[in-house]
Amino acid sequence: MKPLRIAVTPGEPAGIGPDLIIALAQQAWPAQLVIFANATMLRERARQLDLPLTLLPYDTDDVTPAAAGSLIIHDVPLVGTVQPGTLNPEHGHYVVETLRLACEANMQGHFDAVVTGPVHKGIINQSGISFSGHTEFFAHQSHTADVVMMLATTGLNVALATTHIPLAYVSKAITRDRLHNVIRIIDHDFRTKFGVPRPHLFVCGLNPHAGEDGHLGREEIDVISPALDELREQGMLISGPLPADTIFQPKYLEQADVVLAMYHDQGLPVLKFKGFGASVNITLGLPFIRTSVDHGTALDLAGSGKADTGSFQQALSKAIELANQKK
Amino acid sequence: MKPLRIAVTPGEPAGIGPDLIIALAQQAWPAQLVIFANATMLRERARQLDLPLTLLPYDTDDVTPAAAGSLIIHDVPLVGTVQPGTLNPEHGHYVVETLRLACEANMQGHFDAVVTGPVHKGIINQSGISFSGHTEFFAHQSHTADVVMMLATTGLNVALATTHIPLAYVSKAITRDRLHNVIRIIDHDFRTKFGVPRPHLFVCGLNPHAGEDGHLGREEIDVISPALDELREQGMLISGPLPADTIFQPKYLEQADVVLAMYHDQGLPVLKFKGFGASVNITLGLPFIRTSVDHGTALDLAGSGKADTGSFQQALSKAIELANQKK
Repeated sequence: MKPLRIAVTPGEPAGIGPDLIIALAQQAWPAQLVIFANATMLRERARQLDLPLTLLPYDTDDVTPAAAGSLIIHDVPLVGTVQPGTLNPEHGHYVVETLRLACEANMQGHFDAVVTGPVHKGIINQSGISFSGHTEFFAHQSHTADVVMMLATTGLNVALATTHIPLAYVSKAITRDRLHNVIRIIDHDFRTKFGVPRPHLFVCGLNPHAGEDGHLGREEIDVISPALDELREQGMLISGPLPADTIFQPKYLEQADVVLAMYHDQGLPVLKFKGFGASVNITLGLPFIRTSVDHGTALDLAGSGKADTGSFQQALSKAIELANQKK
Repeated sequence: MKPLRIAVTPGEPAGIGPDLIIALAQQAWPAQLVIFANATMLRERARQLDLPLTLLPYDTDDVTPAAAGSLIIHDVPLVGTVQPGTLNPEHGHYVVETLRLACEANMQGHFDAVVTGPVHKGIINQSGISFSGHTEFFAHQSHTADVVMMLATTGLNVALATTHIPLAYVSKAITRDRLHNVIRIIDHDFRTKFGVPRPHLFVCGLNPHAGEDGHLGREEIDVISPALDELREQGMLISGPLPADTIFQPKYLEQADVVLAMYHDQGLPVLKFKGFGASVNITLGLPFIRTSVDHGTALDLAGSGKADTGSFQQALSKAIELANQKK
């Protein structure tokens, strides 16, 4: 069997992404990792971290994994110098270009997955590029109308019906069509990528206590419940809408393949609390497998050697696991 | 030292509230518990649960705790009969009357705290009484303009800036005045009731990633941060606004006396996940101490003997602890 090949984007060069991939390169991986980043920046960071690093050129015809202490690199030009911890709007285009190239290479079938490190949305936007997140960027680049953001940790998967929008817009964004698209993508990907023949979804309500029979909001009655009923009639296994403050109880989680939260801060605090620095972001609905770290750029830790590799390690392992399952 | 006297309202008679207090009466308590409920209903439920129960009349002049197997009762009339598991709108007035009496007795200084079991808001409203929750009811009855709902479990206290309102209204409800009132109440009650000389508050943002410098919403910049800055200038110890999906990490929680969430489902899922059936609801800002269970009426378990006493036990213990601290 041909070894897997995984595209890796360390993301923001002033953040901890480069540190983490250099630290993780100190072990051998059961797949070929190809790093989409600037070679000079990586070499300098390795020196700052006092870690050995050999960079090997990317060769499309060779899928041999690199040995411990080395990385295969798809070099991406970067203007100016990188100071760990100091954002530079001149590097916004570089960051986005690493993502674009990794996406394109996956679309062309040269890769089995892409794993992304943290980017800084603010500085990318400051550089003049409108950028709301990796998930949205990959969806756009791959001409995918709808994608679903899911975070995973041992024993818990949390998918989001809406992602990076102001809280005040959430209620209007929860529509029958959005719920249908999201749940169909989850159901499809769990069957085809995760090997779950009939995934069981547990769905949160939008309002406190899932609206409490309409006393605390009507979206459950007017939108969510009817949308779920239609999908149940099509054979999907769906429980809810249930109150978000009771859905994360063992009696539900034991049955749930995935919990669908209506918005970001309804589902992710408990996922990250449970995950404890080792959760993985997985994009469902893309034409390729994509996982990511669950944390930000942690600028204050860049270059210090103190950044925790847990989530990046999990993201790489999860991508390899899913790619193996798909083969 | 005079023993403490605690008012207890079991709440909805068709739910598990009566079951729990009967189960907890099987042990002796280091305070006099006075139950505001219907005596006949309690006797019948004890028979159904096959548990011994002696009911003793409430005597304002005697503060001796009851022995194991008995309860002191402030009898409240109830029309008709109670079927465990079956709601009856005729009992709405009874439930509210138990709360009113317990509140009044606390206001008059006959008690050191009140502990409440679960009520069913829907059936109370169906009975013709507008009722949005215990917290709001006690605030109104005690002429308190602002109260704060807080849930507590070992190692984590979560207070809410808004409580039982539809999600779509939350953004508008987060105002400078509301934040000032809420935080002043928390600061005051932690100093005076919890014995924390200088409480450290960790405050969540409203939007995902706390708005990410305005890219995901402006309430943090326009409302929350300026409001917190004013309170800091008055000497309060406040961190934030921080993203809700990172605030519940050990590095923050180790320093936090309390986390302030902007709304119900931002803070309570993680609290209840951590609390695992043993968290307590505490109302701050009232002229008396009030704790409560963190769960609902669980109609399906009423009369079965299978209801978990964990949260009610914690609510009683916490009320006794706080009342002792205040003495």
